Amino acid sequence: MDIAIVLYDRFTALDAIGPYEVLSRLPGARVTFLAAQAGPVRTDTGMLTLVAERSLEELSSPEIVLVPGGPGEVAARAGEEMLAWLREADRTSTWTTSVCTGSLILAAAGLLRGVRATSHWLAMDALAALGAEATSQRVVFEGKIVTAAGVSAGIDMALALAGRIAGREVAEAIQLSIEYDPQPPFDAGSPQKAPREIRELIEAGSRFRSAAEQQSGVTG
Amino acid sequence: MDIAIVLYDRFTALDAIGPYEVLSRLPGARVTFLAAQAGPVRTDTGMLTLVAERSLEELSSPEIVLVPGGPGEVAARAGEEMLAWLREADRTSTWTTSVCTGSLILAAAGLLRGVRATSHWLAMDALAALGAEATSQRVVFEGKIVTAAGVSAGIDMALALAGRIAGREVAEAIQLSIEYDPQPPFDAGSPQKAPREIRELIEAGSRFRSAAEQQSGVTG
Repeated sequence: MDIAIVLYDRFTALDAIGPYEVLSRLPGARVTFLAAQAGPVRTDTGMLTLVAERSLEELSSPEIVLVPGGPGEVAARAGEEMLAWLREADRTSTWTTSVCTGSLILAAAGLLRGVRATSHWLAMDALAALGAEATSQRVVFEGKIVTAAGVSAGIDMALALAGRIAGREVAEAIQLSIEYDPQPPFDAGSPQKAPREIRELIEAGSRFRSAAEQQSGVTG
Repeated sequence: MDIAIVLYDRFTALDAIGPYEVLSRLPGARVTFLAAQAGPVRTDTGMLTLVAERSLEELSSPEIVLVPGGPGEVAARAGEEMLAWLREADRTSTWTTSVCTGSLILAAAGLLRGVRATSHWLAMDALAALGAEATSQRVVFEGKIVTAAGVSAGIDMALALAGRIAGREVAEAIQLSIEYDPQPPFDAGSPQKAPREIRELIEAGSRFRSAAEQQSGVTG
């Protein structure tokens, strides 16, 4: 089972690595990290580099496609090459998936028109502006399109996907292997739960400040 | 604030990337991925490569040291170079930390003698055999030594550490930024919660099969 994780400059590492850690443990899984060009790809912090083993054109027809989010999504969805690859890959994939603002890239590729989908909580308006039916859930299954909310939500998505693909027992075995029994020391992980002043602080600093800015793409 | 994440061949990616995603968002954080030699480092699945930006000898005296786990820990703790670096780094660190079986490496370096610490649930006996006071908790703070349980527990550890370092508000802002509001689709994330047959299946396939094997190191 070929699983393609599509990287681009300034993606968010955990968006990709959370699902990788789950999906790579599926029986028969072969995960390949791809990018426009094979080679090192820098994450959004500038402090970490992952290696894309292959270029996009070197792998076609993966069963699972996963697109992480991150500030680099603005440039990623401005470039036609990745969008064309995604459209083509989606024609034959069993599952086309994203984490965080990766859903904006899927939407820019035209794959989410009228499709229920989620994204980072700050990017829900941007997602709707790109034609998706923005749905504030942590994980949204809609046919073969599966989208996850911000960053860490990719772990929950991948476990749910593992259950659909290989059954509950396999998914539970993966969950136990990675000891995924979360015990966050604080309870501020969603805009509904976080203190209002924390939420406002993040909103103020966000590149998703207004719908006008989102649509013009100047917030990248 | 220098944060050193120490990589080695066949480490587990999420052990390192979970905490990286949290700690890199601390004000003033400068995360450096290190390994015995700078350059590409392969993870345990063989399907992913991260880049160590520097060699161990190029960075001394980080404020935070983090050691991930993974099947490569057996070879890592058999080599004196990393252990010597950890002993030296621990002399001046503010926090010396590990995720999963990274605690076995800290223990092999002699840093956990009589110290309360945790590890992957399968490795608790191995941890005790190396002289630590093995404690089945998700995150254990003991002075400046902080250890996390298996793989995904590094996220919880890093958020708790962020709270100690920068205060609750900053930690909550990080939690909201990465939308860490976990909703696992199954409830099998600890040996207590997982169905018995799932647990036994994993135990049967584990390289930590018996205390004798652990201590002779033949299970790597």
